[in-house]
Amino acid sequence: MYHQAHGRFAYPVAPDTLRVVLRAGKGDLRQVTVVFEDRYQAAERQAQVMERAAADELFDHFQADITLATSRFVYAFLVDDGVQRTFMTEKGFFDDPPKDSGFQYPYIAPQDLWEPPRWAQGAVVYQIFPERFANGDTSNDPKQVEDWDALPTRESMKGGDLQGIIDGLDYLEKLGVEVLYLTPIFESPSNHKYNITDYYRIDPHFGDLETCRELVQKCHQRDIRILFDAVFNHCGYEFFAFQDVIKNGRKSPYWDWFRIDGDTVKTDPPNYETFADGIWTMPKLMTQNPEVREYCLNVAEYWIQECDIDGWRLDVANEVDHDFWRAFRKRVKAAKPDALIVGEVWHEASAWVQGDQFDSVMNYPFADACTAFFAEQSILAETFAHRLAKVQMNHQQVVNRAMYNLFGSHDTPRFLTLAGERREKLKLAAGFALTYEGAPMIYYGDEVGMVGDNDPDCRRGMIWDNKRQDRQLLQWYMDLIALRRSQPLLKTGHCRIAAADSIRNLIAFVRYDDSQQLLVVFNNSDQEQSLDLGEISWPLQPPKAVRDLLTGRKASESVSLQPNQMMVLQ
Amino acid sequence: MYHQAHGRFAYPVAPDTLRVVLRAGKGDLRQVTVVFEDRYQAAERQAQVMERAAADELFDHFQADITLATSRFVYAFLVDDGVQRTFMTEKGFFDDPPKDSGFQYPYIAPQDLWEPPRWAQGAVVYQIFPERFANGDTSNDPKQVEDWDALPTRESMKGGDLQGIIDGLDYLEKLGVEVLYLTPIFESPSNHKYNITDYYRIDPHFGDLETCRELVQKCHQRDIRILFDAVFNHCGYEFFAFQDVIKNGRKSPYWDWFRIDGDTVKTDPPNYETFADGIWTMPKLMTQNPEVREYCLNVAEYWIQECDIDGWRLDVANEVDHDFWRAFRKRVKAAKPDALIVGEVWHEASAWVQGDQFDSVMNYPFADACTAFFAEQSILAETFAHRLAKVQMNHQQVVNRAMYNLFGSHDTPRFLTLAGERREKLKLAAGFALTYEGAPMIYYGDEVGMVGDNDPDCRRGMIWDNKRQDRQLLQWYMDLIALRRSQPLLKTGHCRIAAADSIRNLIAFVRYDDSQQLLVVFNNSDQEQSLDLGEISWPLQPPKAVRDLLTGRKASESVSLQPNQMMVLQ
Repeated sequence: MYHQAHGRFAYPVAPDTLRVVLRAGKGDLRQVTVVFEDRYQAAERQAQVMERAAADELFDHFQADITLATSRFVYAFLVDDGVQRTFMTEKGFFDDPPKDSGFQYPYIAPQDLWEPPRWAQGAVVYQIFPERFANGDTSNDPKQVEDWDALPTRESMKGGDLQGIIDGLDYLEKLGVEVLYLTPIFESPSNHKYNITDYYRIDPHFGDLETCRELVQKCHQRDIRILFDAVFNHCGYEFFAFQDVIKNGRKSPYWDWFRIDGDTVKTDPPNYETFADGIWTMPKLMTQNPEVREYCLNVAEYWIQECDIDGWRLDVANEVDHDFWRAFRKRVKAAKPDALIVGEVWHEASAWVQGDQFDSVMNYPFADACTAFFAEQSILAETFAHRLAKVQMNHQQVVNRAMYNLFGSHDTPRFLTLAGERREKLKLAAGFALTYEGAPMIYYGDEVGMVGDNDPDCRRGMIWDNKRQDRQLLQWYMDLIALRRSQPLLKTGHCRIAAADSIRNLIAFVRYDDSQQLLVVFNNSDQEQSLDLGEISWPLQPPKAVRDLLTGRKASESVSLQPNQMMVLQ
Repeated sequence: MYHQAHGRFAYPVAPDTLRVVLRAGKGDLRQVTVVFEDRYQAAERQAQVMERAAADELFDHFQADITLATSRFVYAFLVDDGVQRTFMTEKGFFDDPPKDSGFQYPYIAPQDLWEPPRWAQGAVVYQIFPERFANGDTSNDPKQVEDWDALPTRESMKGGDLQGIIDGLDYLEKLGVEVLYLTPIFESPSNHKYNITDYYRIDPHFGDLETCRELVQKCHQRDIRILFDAVFNHCGYEFFAFQDVIKNGRKSPYWDWFRIDGDTVKTDPPNYETFADGIWTMPKLMTQNPEVREYCLNVAEYWIQECDIDGWRLDVANEVDHDFWRAFRKRVKAAKPDALIVGEVWHEASAWVQGDQFDSVMNYPFADACTAFFAEQSILAETFAHRLAKVQMNHQQVVNRAMYNLFGSHDTPRFLTLAGERREKLKLAAGFALTYEGAPMIYYGDEVGMVGDNDPDCRRGMIWDNKRQDRQLLQWYMDLIALRRSQPLLKTGHCRIAAADSIRNLIAFVRYDDSQQLLVVFNNSDQEQSLDLGEISWPLQPPKAVRDLLTGRKASESVSLQPNQMMVLQ
C-alpha cells in the first residue's frame, strides 16, 4: 500500500480540488475512503469513497477528487480489506490515528495548477518526414534525387520539401488532422536532418524562410497547428561551432561547447562525445554550458517569433539535463504562452511531465503495447490493459490527455509491416489510438497502407497515387477522426479500462464525464465474440441499450463483434 | 515490488554512477541482483547483488550503485524470493526479458548531478530566537521589556538582540556549533518577527545593518556559518504594500500583491487571504504575481550581497508555489554559489528537495519520531526504525546528509518538557541526532536544560547563569559535538539501521564508508541491556572487539548498556 502527498499521487485538478491516488496490492482492498479536512481546521471533516481507477499487474489504484474552499488539505485513508478496517496515515497504520498523523497537501498554489495547452489535449497529430512526404518544388531538389517510389537507403534523397506539405494541406485537412509535427527542416546534409548545420536556416532543399512562413500561415488558416523538431542534444558535424573547434582546436571559443578528449578533433573513432555510441556526424552539445544553452534557447524562441510555429518536439530529450528543459519551457512559453512542448522519451517519462518541463512526450510505451497486442499478438488483453494502466497512472490526467499516442514513427518499422500486413489489425490499432485518451499520432502514410521495415525502409516516399493507396483504410481513418472530432468525450473525457478478457482477447474502455459515457470495444481475435454489457464496469448508470456509432447497429444486454471488429457504443 | 527510473529510485551519485533502489514487499525477496549495460551496447553486460538498505513497516529497499563509463544505463532486476527467480523489467516480469524491456536511465547529464553545499552536510546547527537569546545592548530595548526570566506571554518583549548573539559567540564556538540559524530579524512589531514590516531593515530593537554585518563577520572568523529566515509566504500588516492597499483600495498599485475579497480591507474577520486560518496580522503574499516575486527575490539577494549570509531558512515554504522556489534557488545560488536553502516543511518533503528547489528541510518527521521514541515512549524501537527508514528512503542520500535533524524548535514544546524532564532521555535524543546522518539542529537552551511547553513557553529567555544551567548536560553536548567533528564518518558516512529490538527497546545504526565503520547503540529502556554484536548487520567485516568512544570501555561478542546509555563503538 503506498501513497505520497505529491506527484502522481496527489495533484491539484482545480484551485480548490486535489486528486489523491492510493496504490494497493492487487485485490488486497475492498474499499478505500479518504477522510479529509482543512489543515487549520477551518472546515468540517469530510469523507469520500474512492473510485477504483486502474489496475496493472501488481497494483490497484484508488482515486478521488477532494474539494476544500481553503485549498489546504490534511487527509488519511480508511482502508478496508473485507476483514479489517484501519487508517493509513503518513505515520503508519492506526485504528485511532494520532493527532497530526495525516498526509498533507499544504496548499494549492495557483502557480502549481497547470495543464498542457488546451488545443493540444486530445488533438489528432500527423507526423511528416519532409524529405519523403511530397516534392512540391523540383527546382530545389538535391543533386542526385532518386525515384520517388524506389526503396530508400540511408543516403537516399527524394526531393520532398515544404512546398510539398503546403500542397498536401488539402489532403491533410480532409483527413481531419489538427496538428502537424515535422521532423527537422533546418540545413543539414542528411535526409533526416537530425545532424544540423545551421539552426537558423531552412534546408535549401526544403525551401526558405518564406516557404516556411507560408506553410505555417496556411496551416493556421485551416486551424491546423504545426510543431517543429528541436535537436539540442547534438548538432551536425558541419555546425559552425564544431567546424571552428576542428580548425582552431583548444583556441576555439567553442571548445567548451563539446566534450573532446585531446587537443584536436578525430572522427574515426570520434574522440568527442556524440549522440548514441560514437556517431561522429552528431557531436553532443554541452547544454550545461551557459553559452550553448543561450544559443539553443535563442533558436527555440526565433522560430516561434519568426514563423509563429505552435511548439517544439524535442529530439533525444532524455539525454539533456532537466535544468535546460526548465529554462526552455520558460523561454518558449514567454514567446508563445500556448506553445506545446513534446519530448522524445522512449521509456517511462514521468520525470519530464510534471509541469516544469514538457507538456507531453512521444508515448512509446503506448506504441509498444499496441504493437505487441494488435500487430504481433505477443500479449493478450489483460497484459495490454495492465501496460496501459501503468502508463496512465504514471502521469497526471492532463498529461495523459496530451500524450502523443503513436504506434509507429520514422524510428520504428511501420505498424502494417509488424502486423504481417493484416490491414484489419492496423484498423484496430488506429481505431484504438483515435478513441483512447491522449493525442493520437499518425505516421505519414500509415493511413493509406504504407509498409516498411526499420529505418530506412519506414521512410519511403508517400503514396499519392489513388490506385496504390488503400482507400478503404483511408476512409476508416477519416471516419474515425470525424467521429473523434464530433464527440468531445473522445477528446477530453475521462478514460478507464472497462473490460479485458484474455480468453476471448477482447478489450474495452469507457470515455466519460459527469453526465455521459461511451464504451469502446475491440475484438482482437479472429473469431466472432460477444460481450455481455453487464460485465462492464460503467462509470455512470449502465445503459439499457446501446448503439454503435460506427455502424449504427443497436444492441442490449450483449453485443456481438465480428473478428477484428471495434465498436463505439453509446 | 516497485521501481521507477528516476527520483529517489534512480539518481546519479557520480558522473558515471547511478544509484538504483528497488522497493519490495517486506520479507518477500531473498536476493535482488541488478543486471545492467550501456543503452547502446557500448560495453559488456554486468551484474551486481543489491544491498538491503532499509526496511520500513511495509517495504524492504534494495540498493546498488552501478557504474558505466558512458553514463547511459539500461537495467533490470533479477528478483529471487527463495522459490523462484525472475526478471523485473519496465514492461513487467519475465524469465526471459524481451528486447528493450529494461528500465532506462538515459544519461547522467552533468547538470543533473547535484548536492547541497558540502559545508552544510552533517554540520551542527544551532537555532536562535533572537529576542530571547541574549540582550547585548540595552539601549535598543523595546519600551516595555519584561524580566528576562519571567515566563513569556505571546506579547512579551525581553530585549534580546544581535549584539547578544555576538557576545554569545564564545559560548557557541566552545559548544562546537558550525551553523547558526536565526528566526527573523527584520523590522516587525512582534517578538517572533514573522510578520515583517520592512524586509530591508534590521529590527531597530535587534540592531542595525552594521551590527548585522559585524555578527556575520565574527561568525565567519570563527568558521561559523549563518542563516537568516525568509518569510515570503506572507508579510506583516504594517508592510508598506499592504498599508498602501488599506489606504488606496483597488487603486493601489499593490492591490494584486494580495487576494482581497471586496474593495476595502477588513480585519475582523480578515477579508483577505492570510497565513493559516484568518491571522489578520499576516496577509498572504501572491508569489505568483511577477512583481511580488521580483520583490522577494531581490530581498533574498540583498542580504547575501550586503551581509554575506550563508543561506536562507524558508518559512512556511510548503504554501508557496514550486516555480517561485525554483527561481529563488537560481537567484540565491547566483549570488552565492555555496549558499544553503532550507525549507520549513513539517511533513514528507521530497517534492522540494530534488535539486531544483531546496537543499534541505527542517526534518520534522525525524523530530516526531525522536519525541515519540525517546521522550513520550509511545513507540518502540522497531516502529522508530521504520519511521527513520521511511524518511531516509524518501530522499536522495545527499539530501539526507543535509537534513535539519531537529527534535524541537520555537514551534514545539521543548524536548525536556515532553520527556517529563528526564534528562537521560534528552541525552539519548541529542546523542542520536549528533551521531545520525544529517545536520543535527540544537534549539537554543536545550543544551543547558531549558524546559517549556508550546509557544510562548518554549521561547523563554536563554539561561546564562552558570548555576542555573545544567552543566553536566552541556558537557554531554560538547563531548558529542567534539566527537562528531573528530569523526568524519559521523558527518558524511553512510547510515543504516543495524538493530532494532522492541522488547529490549534497543536501537543501533552503523555509520560507514568503504573502509571504516562505527556502531552507535542506544538503550532506551530503564533496565540494563546487552547487545550481542553477532546480531548486528555490519556493512564491512564484523570487528572482533569494539571500544566505546564515549567511555573508552572495550568489549567483544556483546556489550552491556546501562539504562538509557548510548555508545559509539569502533
